[in-house]
Amino acid sequence: MSRQMHLGLFLLGTGSHVAGWRMPGAIDSFQDIDAMIRVAQIAERGLLDMIFMGDNLYGDPAAHPSYTVRFEPLTLLSALAMHTRHIGLGATVSTTYSDPFTTARAFASLDHISKGRAAWNAVTGSSPQAAPNFGRLHPNHAERYAIAGEFVDVVKGLWDGWADDAIEADRATGRYIDPAKVRSLDHEGTHFSVKGPLNIGRAPQGHPVILQAGGSEPGQALAARTADVVFSVVQDLAEAKAQYEALKARLPALGRRPEEVTVLPGVMPVVGRTSEEAFAKLAQLMGFVDATNALALLSDRFGTDMSAYDLDGPVPDLPIPDTYHSFARVMLNKARREGMRLRDAYNLMAAARGHWVLCGSAEEVADTLEEWFRGGAADGFNIMPSHLAEGLEDFVELVVPILQRRGLFRTAYAGTTLRENLGLARPPRREA
Amino acid sequence: MSRQMHLGLFLLGTGSHVAGWRMPGAIDSFQDIDAMIRVAQIAERGLLDMIFMGDNLYGDPAAHPSYTVRFEPLTLLSALAMHTRHIGLGATVSTTYSDPFTTARAFASLDHISKGRAAWNAVTGSSPQAAPNFGRLHPNHAERYAIAGEFVDVVKGLWDGWADDAIEADRATGRYIDPAKVRSLDHEGTHFSVKGPLNIGRAPQGHPVILQAGGSEPGQALAARTADVVFSVVQDLAEAKAQYEALKARLPALGRRPEEVTVLPGVMPVVGRTSEEAFAKLAQLMGFVDATNALALLSDRFGTDMSAYDLDGPVPDLPIPDTYHSFARVMLNKARREGMRLRDAYNLMAAARGHWVLCGSAEEVADTLEEWFRGGAADGFNIMPSHLAEGLEDFVELVVPILQRRGLFRTAYAGTTLRENLGLARPPRREA
Repeated sequence: MSRQMHLGLFLLGTGSHVAGWRMPGAIDSFQDIDAMIRVAQIAERGLLDMIFMGDNLYGDPAAHPSYTVRFEPLTLLSALAMHTRHIGLGATVSTTYSDPFTTARAFASLDHISKGRAAWNAVTGSSPQAAPNFGRLHPNHAERYAIAGEFVDVVKGLWDGWADDAIEADRATGRYIDPAKVRSLDHEGTHFSVKGPLNIGRAPQGHPVILQAGGSEPGQALAARTADVVFSVVQDLAEAKAQYEALKARLPALGRRPEEVTVLPGVMPVVGRTSEEAFAKLAQLMGFVDATNALALLSDRFGTDMSAYDLDGPVPDLPIPDTYHSFARVMLNKARREGMRLRDAYNLMAAARGHWVLCGSAEEVADTLEEWFRGGAADGFNIMPSHLAEGLEDFVELVVPILQRRGLFRTAYAGTTLRENLGLARPPRREA
Repeated sequence: MSRQMHLGLFLLGTGSHVAGWRMPGAIDSFQDIDAMIRVAQIAERGLLDMIFMGDNLYGDPAAHPSYTVRFEPLTLLSALAMHTRHIGLGATVSTTYSDPFTTARAFASLDHISKGRAAWNAVTGSSPQAAPNFGRLHPNHAERYAIAGEFVDVVKGLWDGWADDAIEADRATGRYIDPAKVRSLDHEGTHFSVKGPLNIGRAPQGHPVILQAGGSEPGQALAARTADVVFSVVQDLAEAKAQYEALKARLPALGRRPEEVTVLPGVMPVVGRTSEEAFAKLAQLMGFVDATNALALLSDRFGTDMSAYDLDGPVPDLPIPDTYHSFARVMLNKARREGMRLRDAYNLMAAARGHWVLCGSAEEVADTLEEWFRGGAADGFNIMPSHLAEGLEDFVELVVPILQRRGLFRTAYAGTTLRENLGLARPPRREA
């Protein structure tokens, strides 16, 4: 079988478009369990590899209205596991504002509950707004990544504490656990001291899948060393290809093969039966954008208050900020390349929060995805519907069948775990 | 309608009896999602108020074999919410090893997911064995309760950050949130600094139900001030009555009515169609007890290595330890009162981990529960099956119908939320 795409559903708010919830018939709540169940089932009908739930750790009603109120990801995905059978379930948990024992345990639990479908999106937490909710100061970029590297290693070490066959539950002898098959971790590091073992047996996947999205140099280094799947922020084929190649090129020196890391650029497909229908839908979406929200989002992404700048002037030459590094870099590069006005950047941010917007007929969208996939820019895509459920349904009903006809996407789930569907090996238990 | 009992299912390991998993046909895994779904559905069939899931934060294969491996409670209960419609879902989360923002958020999330059935069992974490998993020293008893008091207040404050109607999602105006109906908490205390607001809207119950089980003086003081439901450790009617009265007597000074706190002593019913059948079952259970496990448990509860003592000698006069305070106190009192040998204490600990064991025919069990309930020792009971599912099924099928015939227990769920089924008011949003 030739190489096939992997597809994720990025679940964030009422959709990735900042005002998508205003579309007629759109889901207008990100804390409605019945709506989330419906979305998960559509994604599974489309045979997507996984649902990937973004997160943040603060409530700012001014910044991102439709995803200020949200479920906590692990509780939501655990509930969705009960309404799906195949699709992977990826939750974002911050390495800056959680702890390795709790995190390792929760993902092992989700992996048992979902019978091998859990994934952890390990983020360092871009936003300093989380810090005061935890009585903390937000560590700087370098420190966050130093913490994250140790955090991920500890989590993996905890996941290896129990052998697959440590639990005997032998009624005749009364022996429940073989103590020789359980070990503590006894980690003493720079940032963490964690004894272990966990209080849950080895996960069905061995290790739940690890997702990462950091685009900075330390982010890429961490992903190359520890991630199974990387979500990337892209706006341009050449740039995506360069980024893809750079990440894959890091792997051999780390003892990993290129196919051990699946790279999925984020894309907001706006799909119509015809190109005109798609562009009309995008225009309708953009008509709902509120200037205040869009400017707040742009300021947030650029790490600079943009309200003082002329919307019809050029995008100013700003430094790449410490937070939202990838979004700012990709957008500022694009602006420089294309001579964008600030208004264009603002519209693009409003459309998909800085992610790539791909608008066209289903055939055109499939053509571009194929071009990127075959052209060495992607192993698949992280689909970011503009609004729900329509944005997802359009993709599943119109684009997926074309990809399937072209032999680019599965026609049935092949495995029972997320690792199997991603074509990733089950990690063996590391020796102590 | 006359006063009725409230009944909880205490879900811990493969059952509360230390070796219950060895019974023929018993569930022998506490990390089997299908088994847990079956148990939850039996409890709901029995119209129980809630499932209450114990927890710990360390894996010690030697101490408690059948509950060393377990689900993380919030992920499990979120999954169980999808397979039940009425029963409350209570998860244990430690105030010593979690943080208020994460905790407030997770329970609000579970409350939304379950449509108003979440409960938080706030524990200070009795066991010092958790500390090294978090790179911490275990705070002493007084400090743990000082932390817990502030923690619970912060969580309640965060739950009040959003008004019920803060989310407008007005498609016409584009206004998603009414910012006047959201406020930060700006808590600056001795142990926590938490800004808020949460990133989730107000919970369906206003506040998820708060459970507590602390039996020490600071534990009782905290429960009287903040809990909706109190689980107690009892071995004797007179003692239970004194404890019940003492707790209720604290309430008026705190501006609370006695019926605002539901007191549920823990009990392990071993039920048969006849008394003989019940005692035969108990004997069968006790036959599975392994001396090593039982002594480890006794040592853990008493905070003293008991292996040096003569099993056929008297229970020694030990000081009440800082950890597992209630278990040790109740058991040592009982031993003194009844002149128990160490072997008796050990058997009682093995049977129900120090909780009350009530063995008899269904009529006898119902008689005793009624006596305690009418006699001012309980508002209901926290049922701790010896093993699953049989221990629970016996209670649901044999005892519940008797309680119903006597008008002591509901014949249908009255409300849609846990608060409604417990007869507790929905807390109004406190003014800033």
